[in-house]
Amino acid sequence: MASKPEINNIRKKIHEVIYEADTPMGKLFDVVLLILILLSIILVCLESVESLRKLYSDEFLIAEWVITGFFTIEYILRIYSINKPAKYIFSFFGIVDLLSTIPLYLTFFFGGINALLTFRSLRLLRVFRILKVTRYIGEANKLKRAIRNSAPKIAVFLFAVLVLSVIFGTLMYLVEGPEHGFVSIPVSIYWCIVTLTTVGFGDIAPETPLGQFIATLIMIMGYGIIAVPTGIVSAEYSQGENTEDVNDPNYRHVNTQVCQNCLAKKHQDDAKFCHKCGCSLDV
Amino acid sequence: MASKPEINNIRKKIHEVIYEADTPMGKLFDVVLLILILLSIILVCLESVESLRKLYSDEFLIAEWVITGFFTIEYILRIYSINKPAKYIFSFFGIVDLLSTIPLYLTFFFGGINALLTFRSLRLLRVFRILKVTRYIGEANKLKRAIRNSAPKIAVFLFAVLVLSVIFGTLMYLVEGPEHGFVSIPVSIYWCIVTLTTVGFGDIAPETPLGQFIATLIMIMGYGIIAVPTGIVSAEYSQGENTEDVNDPNYRHVNTQVCQNCLAKKHQDDAKFCHKCGCSLDV
Amino acid sequence: MASKPEINNIRKKIHEVIYEADTPMGKLFDVVLLILILLSIILVCLESVESLRKLYSDEFLIAEWVITGFFTIEYILRIYSINKPAKYIFSFFGIVDLLSTIPLYLTFFFGGINALLTFRSLRLLRVFRILKVTRYIGEANKLKRAIRNSAPKIAVFLFAVLVLSVIFGTLMYLVEGPEHGFVSIPVSIYWCIVTLTTVGFGDIAPETPLGQFIATLIMIMGYGIIAVPTGIVSAEYSQGENTEDVNDPNYRHVNTQVCQNCLAKKHQDDAKFCHKCGCSLDV
Amino acid sequence: MASKPEINNIRKKIHEVIYEADTPMGKLFDVVLLILILLSIILVCLESVESLRKLYSDEFLIAEWVITGFFTIEYILRIYSINKPAKYIFSFFGIVDLLSTIPLYLTFFFGGINALLTFRSLRLLRVFRILKVTRYIGEANKLKRAIRNSAPKIAVFLFAVLVLSVIFGTLMYLVEGPEHGFVSIPVSIYWCIVTLTTVGFGDIAPETPLGQFIATLIMIMGYGIIAVPTGIVSAEYSQGENTEDVNDPNYRHVNTQVCQNCLAKKHQDDAKFCHKCGCSLDV
Repeated sequence: MASKPEINNIRKKIHEVIYEADTPMGKLFDVVLLILILLSIILVCLESVESLRKLYSDEFLIAEWVITGFFTIEYILRIYSINKPAKYIFSFFGIVDLLSTIPLYLTFFFGGINALLTFRSLRLLRVFRILKVTRYIGEANKLKRAIRNSAPKIAVFLFAVLVLSVIFGTLMYLVEGPEHGFVSIPVSIYWCIVTLTTVGFGDIAPETPLGQFIATLIMIMGYGIIAVPTGIVSAEYSQGENTEDVNDPNYRHVNTQVCQNCLAKKHQDDAKFCHKCGCSLDV
Repeated sequence: MASKPEINNIRKKIHEVIYEADTPMGKLFDVVLLILILLSIILVCLESVESLRKLYSDEFLIAEWVITGFFTIEYILRIYSINKPAKYIFSFFGIVDLLSTIPLYLTFFFGGINALLTFRSLRLLRVFRILKVTRYIGEANKLKRAIRNSAPKIAVFLFAVLVLSVIFGTLMYLVEGPEHGFVSIPVSIYWCIVTLTTVGFGDIAPETPLGQFIATLIMIMGYGIIAVPTGIVSAEYSQGENTEDVNDPNYRHVNTQVCQNCLAKKHQDDAKFCHKCGCSLDV
Repeated sequence: MASKPEINNIRKKIHEVIYEADTPMGKLFDVVLLILILLSIILVCLESVESLRKLYSDEFLIAEWVITGFFTIEYILRIYSINKPAKYIFSFFGIVDLLSTIPLYLTFFFGGINALLTFRSLRLLRVFRILKVTRYIGEANKLKRAIRNSAPKIAVFLFAVLVLSVIFGTLMYLVEGPEHGFVSIPVSIYWCIVTLTTVGFGDIAPETPLGQFIATLIMIMGYGIIAVPTGIVSAEYSQGENTEDVNDPNYRHVNTQVCQNCLAKKHQDDAKFCHKCGCSLDV
Repeated sequence: MASKPEINNIRKKIHEVIYEADTPMGKLFDVVLLILILLSIILVCLESVESLRKLYSDEFLIAEWVITGFFTIEYILRIYSINKPAKYIFSFFGIVDLLSTIPLYLTFFFGGINALLTFRSLRLLRVFRILKVTRYIGEANKLKRAIRNSAPKIAVFLFAVLVLSVIFGTLMYLVEGPEHGFVSIPVSIYWCIVTLTTVGFGDIAPETPLGQFIATLIMIMGYGIIAVPTGIVSAEYSQGENTEDVNDPNYRHVNTQVCQNCLAKKHQDDAKFCHKCGCSLDV
């Protein structure tokens, strides 16, 4: 009978270490995990370099096994320590953790499955979660709010960019044609986005005078259009500044008091007297 | 005699479905039309890929006929249901609808007329009209106002960019010359716009030291200039924010009261007393 | 004796037409001059296209003579009608006008002098002067003020970009070396500016892993740095908005009154009573 | 006994000239140093051009010795005139000064050591220090404050860009593969940063339809993402404006007075009466 609460205690302890970050052990776990994730990504990067893959294939395999071992233990402990394992298993990070751990096991049955490498890099997203507990959290939240607010507006704008790209892509396909690299309308639309976003690879470039003229229009449009999302984020961000400081002019007062005397509303949060008639608000 | 109002009723019904979007049927029609437009554009895109065109030429032809059929019916119904058909026929979308519908019919008389493909993609602009009725409308309107306000200023600025491009384009033509790809002044101007807008295809690049030095100046100018339209939109957009909230410092008061005592104007919307002489405004 | 005031009258009239733009004739002159400038630039552009130069050499020569004739007459009239000709002759536009007019005359003595073509395009700058009298003037002035205010700050910033380019250019020259296209430090600096400004021609691109890593740093810096001038112009422009409207919160009050009673300063422009002690300011 | 204070006087004098900039001699020294630094960098640039190096090798050597001589004297005087030489020697500029002075001396023992060239260009950073005493100081400080405030936020954002680049870089490596130039994951990440920052060299470009589609997503993301740091700097910069003007709404009041009567804090700087209870603050 004593072992059950003991086990529960251990589970609670593991849960605290793995899922929470306020305790010293939790912080240590986060740092170790962060280092392991970075190491696993560096390993994947180095393995992809052909010359290194040939030279150090054995060392890479050992390192892979070590990291896979750690990730396997982490995955099992995460499932073991949580009360509702399904909630973790089918969460975004649960799936990413599983898919970034199993590739090495799968090589027994199949050959190398490169497609799962991407999941390894998706693990990097956990870095944001871990860094949430650092000093950047305030800034990150501010950023997040500004980005969330401007997201639908920027979506409208990026949609307009896409529509423009389709129209001008079709036009460029007709003007330049396959003989100048605009082999199909999808490729023309790709080129158009490359140009509108001012990336400009140059793998495809207009060669006819008319094509170059239209390209000029697209570029100037792209140069002007970029002002729009910037303006949106800029406005959203400056609006969201310092809303927690009562003294800031941007602070939005949420006082819901109504003056007993004149029924005036919209008093400042720390108002003691009505700003309309001077009556005390503390009745 | 009974048939005329009946027909009128049907016309009214069709008008409601096609031109309005508040009724369930109107919304359904918009969604179906949106899907058809997207399908027609995907079809045009796929047809332009040579390998697909060869493999599925029959399937493409059938799909073309189906979409052309739908668009033909839509076009006829639009003309039939509106009171002043000429207003629709000669409107922007009326012309686009016609030109994006007829290509297949014209192939009987002429060969394939690719030039009309662009009109098919112009139909995509109707997407904005349809999406107007969605939740993005508020944002789209805000954006539209900011863009409309900053349009003349950005026009002045883009005009300055063009003038700069002509001046530096001529200069680069003299410095680099046809042997380094600057074959004519129009091409040099094209290169100059490619550079100023920071697109930088690289199809033409300066090779002489002096040319590279001037290119450096153009690039730094372009890098600095882009700040201008962004600043304009940013200022316009943040100015237009939250004008419906009286407490916001950006709110523009529209109170037209004049003080009985001192004739002072420009009172705040919720002012009870004159801010100049203190007299009550509620006489 | 009657002829002198008559001549003076004619001179005055010509001066009015050429230098002023408020009279109908002045406006007409500006429009004609604008068209001639645009035509002369289009002519220079077309002449630079080799295929056209061969086909229409005679027509081009005639057109050149016509435009040169007009510009010669304009130049002479400008000198004739002004009271202090030297002021015009040695002004920026005086020199540009002269140098863009004489090339054809010089061909009698020397061959074609292409170098003077640039002055023809510099004439385009007069377009801004002419357009000053159009409806864009308000916007242009606003823009000009914002740009003038942010100019010294942007200069500091562009200088920092240059210093960074020199440092990273030297570094890239050592890392990549002449064998990968970084043939000298000036070329490396040129490449560095191409990269920092996100133009990215691709005529030179790093090939060693270390070079690509440094290039990555430069690009991310360039991507982050561009925010600075944009932020500056944005702030300057939004600050400069509506400063002529007293009710605007951005309006800068210039009231220099000092309260007789409590010596408080910084009263609003339309203040009648001291905002510190309530004493009347109109003593 | 008289010589010691004399020597001290000379040291003080040298210190004043070298380290301070308010005296005429100090300003002169700064200007001379600035010119020498610029000359030394121009020299390094010209020496790196092969054709010039061959033609003027002797002249370059003499110029190198002259500049090295000056820098050596400057370095010795700096150490001599300062009270705590170690503080200078191990400071950033102390190390840069040493490393940019010794290369020529080292050539006696070793061959040419190009790697030290970079330190020569790092000397350019001293330009900022020298220009601090010019009229731009106010602007530079404003800029510095805005940049310092937005630095941690921009760091968060650039980190997000890096994480995105790793994820999409891995994805592109799998999609495009070594046969289309994406030879390894590090190179793919490099390409991804080139694309996200809208630089777009074009040395590597996607060729498969799927790769081009993902590239399109990356470009549109990069085009949208750039709005974020710009918005941050823009907001920080406009917030920091005019904080020295008490009347400005952005002015941050630093009044530390506490009302004797009601203990209310956060009074405006020029407040005479408590804004909570109306008691006089001047007790």
